[in-house]
Parts: sequence; structure tokens; C-alpha cells
Amino acid sequence: MTFQQKLDIAVKKNNSLLCIGLDPVMEKLPEQFLHLVHPFFAFNKTIIDTTYDLVCSYKPNSAFYEAYGAKGIEELKKTCDYIRTTYPEIPIILDAKRGDIGSTNEGYVSYAFDYLQVDAITLNPYLGKEAIKPFLQKKEKGCIILCKTSNPGAKEFQNVKIGDEPLYKKIAKKIIADWNTNSNCLLVIGATYPKELAEIRSLTQTMTFLVPGVGTQGGDVKKTIRAGLNEKKSGMIINASRAIIFSGKGKNFAKIVRQKTLELQKSINMYRV
Amino acid sequence: MTFQQKLDIAVKKNNSLLCIGLDPVMEKLPEQFLHLVHPFFAFNKTIIDTTYDLVCSYKPNSAFYEAYGAKGIEELKKTCDYIRTTYPEIPIILDAKRGDIGSTNEGYVSYAFDYLQVDAITLNPYLGKEAIKPFLQKKEKGCIILCKTSNPGAKEFQNVKIGDEPLYKKIAKKIIADWNTNSNCLLVIGATYPKELAEIRSLTQTMTFLVPGVGTQGGDVKKTIRAGLNEKKSGMIINASRAIIFSGKGKNFAKIVRQKTLELQKSINMYRV
Repeated sequence: MTFQQKLDIAVKKNNSLLCIGLDPVMEKLPEQFLHLVHPFFAFNKTIIDTTYDLVCSYKPNSAFYEAYGAKGIEELKKTCDYIRTTYPEIPIILDAKRGDIGSTNEGYVSYAFDYLQVDAITLNPYLGKEAIKPFLQKKEKGCIILCKTSNPGAKEFQNVKIGDEPLYKKIAKKIIADWNTNSNCLLVIGATYPKELAEIRSLTQTMTFLVPGVGTQGGDVKKTIRAGLNEKKSGMIINASRAIIFSGKGKNFAKIVRQKTLELQKSINMYRV
Repeated sequence: MTFQQKLDIAVKKNNSLLCIGLDPVMEKLPEQFLHLVHPFFAFNKTIIDTTYDLVCSYKPNSAFYEAYGAKGIEELKKTCDYIRTTYPEIPIILDAKRGDIGSTNEGYVSYAFDYLQVDAITLNPYLGKEAIKPFLQKKEKGCIILCKTSNPGAKEFQNVKIGDEPLYKKIAKKIIADWNTNSNCLLVIGATYPKELAEIRSLTQTMTFLVPGVGTQGGDVKKTIRAGLNEKKSGMIINASRAIIFSGKGKNFAKIVRQKTLELQKSINMYRV
């Protein structure tokens, strides 16, 4: 089964376009996790167990685990293993924004697909298609390529004009027309840029977009959904991380996380009709 | 001490612009390392012990270690710890080509500078200065930013024209003029593109370039050195990985690696006069 097929099934089964970013930060964990042997894994497990029927995917960002070195990577692996064995219908996206020369990318391919065994990975397009080939060749895996990122300073290079169009649009066009021969490419477009989201949607009805930034980063749900949906009222993975995972504290932590997830799932679905 | 100061001292002490890329691949290790508990560390240690007086820096690429998950990261840490404690005068560059939104980059900052305790890291500029700030703020650390990469397909986006200049040149100019307020930025320019190297050198006499690609990737030493040196006959870190570390097999492995390193060090110095 391809990543897209797995995603489509999860979207339908859970009636959800919502992806939860599993991005733990030690200082922000509820107290009850702090003194465990695997605090990140235990924290993630609680979030997963309380939201697995409300999401279309989970997206751990490698940076938050690498911060703790080998121990952090172990916790990331435990998290991926747990999702894969307990909720095998939910796809896992490794947010890693990788991109190196071709032979080096083989190492990242092993990290994502052999070691962590995730279903998709985020990639940086700056080195070009030839470098990214080791990922693109994995037909059954999702290659989610940075196009217009959600951060406030994204425009510095992403919006420079190539003739009459911005770089991010040129990149989107290239990926749609030339990189996607295995139908396994997706694009990252930040919820903080709904105009750009609509613009890229007008270029493709079939490609799915990973859209981060609806929570803490301030992206507007209504604008985002209206801008990014395809003709089938789908084609988006809406990611929220901090706004959900750090919403609760203390004993009621899991309950509040489920409540926040439900609210966001519903709020997204409200604009899909 | 800043990265640049540490680098300058090592360049002078060892009379070398050569950096060895510590990029182990299990299938290519000499047999005697294969059955050890930490094969990558043992392999690296042999290379380091036999070349520490011939190089200006070491550059492990994170991808080769991540391929083996937590265990690989442990071997990377052991390698960095060994260099730092045994040859503290030799700077370590973590090749990771990282770049995410600002709050996420904090995780990568911890990975590189708190956990591995390296002196510099390679970064991808696509998300802009605002995102990269957590790295740029580390005044004593080197931020080595991708400009023109060494791979054959680099031109796909790096050479698109912004008005009358290619994107990589626009990025170089921005980094020189605007990102380098802490004097801790360097640029990556592939040895496979000597014309571009000379072009970027004409923009700055003070910035150091990390130049990969002289070995297996086919970059010409003479052309590279002539193109990239600054007025002080320095300002370059010439990296070779596979051409050195996999040059020897069997019992004579270390001897051959030293010989190859010596040859390349001399060959580089020949064109510095």
C-alpha cells in the first residue's frame, strides 16, 4: 500500500484531515512524565491513545528527539513502533526536512524507512531532483517537499521572483510536472499563507498538501481549509503540534488533549462541506 | 574561542586546508572493524589517529550515523567526544544540512552544540534568516550555509535566474551582507563548480568556504584552490570523504589512509603558493 492510499483510508475512517505533531519538549511536559525512563515516549503514547480515532496521521519532528541524542532517537523509535503496531492504520510522517547529495541521502532513507519505518518524510528541495532521487524512488513512501513554509521569514528566498513568478511556485510546478513520476510527492505549504495555498491548489487537484501552522503559529482554519481543499473536499493534512500536545496539564492532561483535538477536527470538517 | 579562530589555528599548525569527512558505510569498512561493538567509532578513531596532524578539521555527516538509529548516533557522539578530548585543537564540523522553523531549530542547536558539542554545523538557507536565527545567535559556533552544492543536479533551483543573477549568488550576497552580523557564517560551494567558486570569492575576501567534492565527486584540486583562495592564500576548507577513508583495506588500511591524506594535503598546498 502506498502512503497516499494509507492516508486516504485514515482520512475516511476517522473523518479527519488533522495530523498531530508529536514534538515533545522536556520543559513543557506535564509533571507526571518527567521522572519516567522514557518521558517522551510515555507522553506521546498518552496523546496517541487518546486521539488515534480523531486524526489522519501523526508527525514527529526529528529535531525534538535529536536534541537528546541517542536517547532521544530511541524514544522516537519507540513512538513510531508503538503507532505502527497498535494503530497500523494511521500513517506516520517523519518531519526531518532532509536533503543532501544523493549518496548521502541513502543514509537518511535508512533512518526514516528501515530504522523508524515511517510512511513519509519531509524534504528540502534546494539540492534538486537528482539529489532527492533515493527518496523519490521509494514508490510506496511519501516524499513531502518544502514549498512555502509556515515561518514569518519564509519569503526571504521562497518569494524571490524568477521572471514573473516566485521561487516557491516554480518549485511547486517542477515537483508537480517532473518529480512526481511515482505519484508519491506532496508539498508543504504553511497555513499562515492561505493566498499561496490557493495559488498552488489551482495548479494541481491530485497532490496532497501538508499544511502546518494552524495552531500556535496563528494560521486561520477557515481560510486555510477553503484555500487548500481539492475538488473532493480533501487533499490536505492539517498539522497542529503545540496547540494540542501542550494544551493540558496535570491529571486531566489526556482529557484536555482529546477535547482540543476533537474541537480542531470538527472545526476543520465544518469548512469541508 | 570562535570556530573561525580555532580553524585558523589548526590550518596554521598543520599547514593544511584539508578536512576529512568521517562518513562510514558498513559495507565499505575494512574487515577488521566489522565485528566490533562500535565499528564506526573504531574506524573513525583509526582515521583520526593517523591523520590528526595533517588536517584542519573533521566533518562527520549525520546521515551515515542516523542510518543506524540510536546506535549510530552513539557512535557519532563517541567520535566527536574522542576528537574533542584527544585532539582539542582540531575543530569538528557536523554536516547535517539542517533547517526548520525557528522554534524547531532549537532542537537541532541542542543536538549539535550541547549533545555532540561540535564547533560548526552545515545549514540549508531555504527557510530564511529568521528561521536560522537560533544557529546564527551562537556567536562562537560556525554556521556553514549551503550556497552552491557539489552534486550534478544542483543547478535545478540554485541556478534559476533572479533578474540577472542566479539564486545561489543572491543567497551568497544576502548571507555576506545580512546574515553574518556575528561573523560566524561560512558558505558551502562545491569543488565541482570552480567558476561559481571564483565568482563568490570575488564578493568576499573574509568569509571561509567549505568546499566538498574534490575526491570521489571529481572536483579538480588545482582549479578549486585557484578559484577559491582569498588574498591570504587561505579561506577554504577542502573536504574529501570517500577518496580518503575508503582508500585502504586490510592490515595496511591506516598506512594507506595517511598516505592519501598526505598526498591531498600536499597537492592542495602546492597551489596555495
